[in-house]
Amino acid sequence: MMPFGREEYLQRLVRVKAGMKERGIDLLVVTDPANICYLTGYNAWSFYVHQAVMVAMNDEMPRFIGRYMDAFCGAVKTTWLNADHVHAYSDDHVQSTVKHPMDYMAGIIREMGCGNATIGLEKDAYYFTATAFESLRKGLPGDRLVDATALVNWVRILKSDVEIAMMRKAGKIVEQAMQAAYDTIGAGARECDVAAAIMQAQVKGTAEFGGDYPSIVPLLPRGETSRYHSPLSRTVSLGQPSQEVRRVAAITLEGLDAALATVKPGVACEEVEAAWRKVLAKYGYAKESRIGYSIGLNYPPDWGEHTASLRPGDRTVLQPNMTFHCIPGMYFDDFGVSISEAFRVTASGYETFAQFPRELYVK
Amino acid sequence: MMPFGREEYLQRLVRVKAGMKERGIDLLVVTDPANICYLTGYNAWSFYVHQAVMVAMNDEMPRFIGRYMDAFCGAVKTTWLNADHVHAYSDDHVQSTVKHPMDYMAGIIREMGCGNATIGLEKDAYYFTATAFESLRKGLPGDRLVDATALVNWVRILKSDVEIAMMRKAGKIVEQAMQAAYDTIGAGARECDVAAAIMQAQVKGTAEFGGDYPSIVPLLPRGETSRYHSPLSRTVSLGQPSQEVRRVAAITLEGLDAALATVKPGVACEEVEAAWRKVLAKYGYAKESRIGYSIGLNYPPDWGEHTASLRPGDRTVLQPNMTFHCIPGMYFDDFGVSISEAFRVTASGYETFAQFPRELYVK
Repeated sequence: MMPFGREEYLQRLVRVKAGMKERGIDLLVVTDPANICYLTGYNAWSFYVHQAVMVAMNDEMPRFIGRYMDAFCGAVKTTWLNADHVHAYSDDHVQSTVKHPMDYMAGIIREMGCGNATIGLEKDAYYFTATAFESLRKGLPGDRLVDATALVNWVRILKSDVEIAMMRKAGKIVEQAMQAAYDTIGAGARECDVAAAIMQAQVKGTAEFGGDYPSIVPLLPRGETSRYHSPLSRTVSLGQPSQEVRRVAAITLEGLDAALATVKPGVACEEVEAAWRKVLAKYGYAKESRIGYSIGLNYPPDWGEHTASLRPGDRTVLQPNMTFHCIPGMYFDDFGVSISEAFRVTASGYETFAQFPRELYVK
Repeated sequence: MMPFGREEYLQRLVRVKAGMKERGIDLLVVTDPANICYLTGYNAWSFYVHQAVMVAMNDEMPRFIGRYMDAFCGAVKTTWLNADHVHAYSDDHVQSTVKHPMDYMAGIIREMGCGNATIGLEKDAYYFTATAFESLRKGLPGDRLVDATALVNWVRILKSDVEIAMMRKAGKIVEQAMQAAYDTIGAGARECDVAAAIMQAQVKGTAEFGGDYPSIVPLLPRGETSRYHSPLSRTVSLGQPSQEVRRVAAITLEGLDAALATVKPGVACEEVEAAWRKVLAKYGYAKESRIGYSIGLNYPPDWGEHTASLRPGDRTVLQPNMTFHCIPGMYFDDFGVSISEAFRVTASGYETFAQFPRELYVK
């Protein structure tokens, strides 16, 4: 899965460690998602939760710390890191007001034997919040925490030849995207149609290589738009699904129905989750992570509102016009089923925003 | 441009102020881009630089603080805020290691007369970095800074009827996007083509209303992808451009050529900008903001690497395989011209990643 070989990553680390040595840093905590990818090959849309890579002067291999689904389904399977260098915090740390993921991270650092070390932090990097810093500060009382913002960025400024090859591909893709923009734009054309053509060209890529979402969306002078969301997931099996996939899909549908059936004003968020959990237990399954969250207006990297969650312990009481995304995804080593609904709480129940039949699709 | 009327925003503020009162907060500093949009109608891809909205108990109207191009071209023109409630920091604060935008913000707060106040901060919100907090802490020595993470989010959890109407539109769009996914997916289909079809449907919207980029991109299990970028901008005039637009486009092209012509190993970043500046001066123009920055691997919200900039004072020396986006945009009240190139420094000069004729397009 990695676009580069192990040797490329080792060379990058040599240069990062030279920068650490220069500043007297024993351990570097990297939270910028691009820097994480640069050092490990980890490439995922998971930066909406706290995650970090730690580079220790005395260890050839960095360590990854993230949410368990990102750590074990992502970092272990797709990076050059060994499984013993991947750590996961439990799901109850996610958007919790009680446990912070950096509390867990401080614990790992203490276990690594840094008790009196100089630790570099990317203090002005996106996603490294004031709270993240305070949590680390509290958890590492004996260490010296210094600012190492942009240390890895300055290593990245000089590209290797394989990186240049990637950028040449990006150059080919942007030629097509610009052509799509030119072809679509015109008097009377809707801005959204022009932007749609650009994004399609960026993500589609060329016949030889695919593209991907860009880090900045097409910036056109825009008319009235809305940032409100209605997420939705469905699962398609290409070819006949196994008995197990069918079984998990049926349980997911039954559980989702049961959860939605509890929705009405006065019910607590945890009761919605409990209805799902009860269906799962009946069939001998369990799921650690929450099954939904409040949604609405938002910007990258998340459409969740970081308030109420459908999970045990959340006593938020449902009211009309609260809106949620219920996504009880079931992920296993070799397959996954995800069927979700975005809904509004009504006076007597719920209303889904999209009408798209809930079933396992087979193609 | 605002999707909602002033009354809607005033009602939201009543609820936010109730939350502030409950916690004894005199001034709330809002940095979450969704919360900023929720309170002011400000909707722009500008959260890659520091920005904030301040809600004071004793003022009906919030204040916006951002980069000058976002403040005056964005907030003043597109929100319900009066111009005297919009403040801008100068461009040399952007990704500077010397001046932080929050230094400027602390100054505004001091001018507002908060010298001994309780100030609420979204300490665990994306984009509110540890450095941002330290800068505010230093600039507001007499104030009490308390955590108000998710205060506005909890107000957002209850939607108004006009918000629900927006989410119903989003529901219609996601039905189409899911159908596009289903129609495209199949054995042998490339993931990038499926993702491209989904994003196109999301951004295009329906015949009645346009869509927009989602806060989370389509998450498919992905094969090998690369996060390297090659940005590019061109300007199209619909109909014959005015003499002034032609003139600015010609100067931009001459200036961009001059800047690129200086590029070679050993030259400092500021020398590249100086060549551009010299062309501008010849025609009586000037431009405050930087004209380029280092690029490569990245994730939202920015493809810039936050290291070297093409601007006065940047003494970074060019080396082969450094890569930049040179974007000397010229923006005026009633028009703008943006023509850019992404390039690699070669042994003797530069190489652009994309080949797309540099000119003013007329359609």
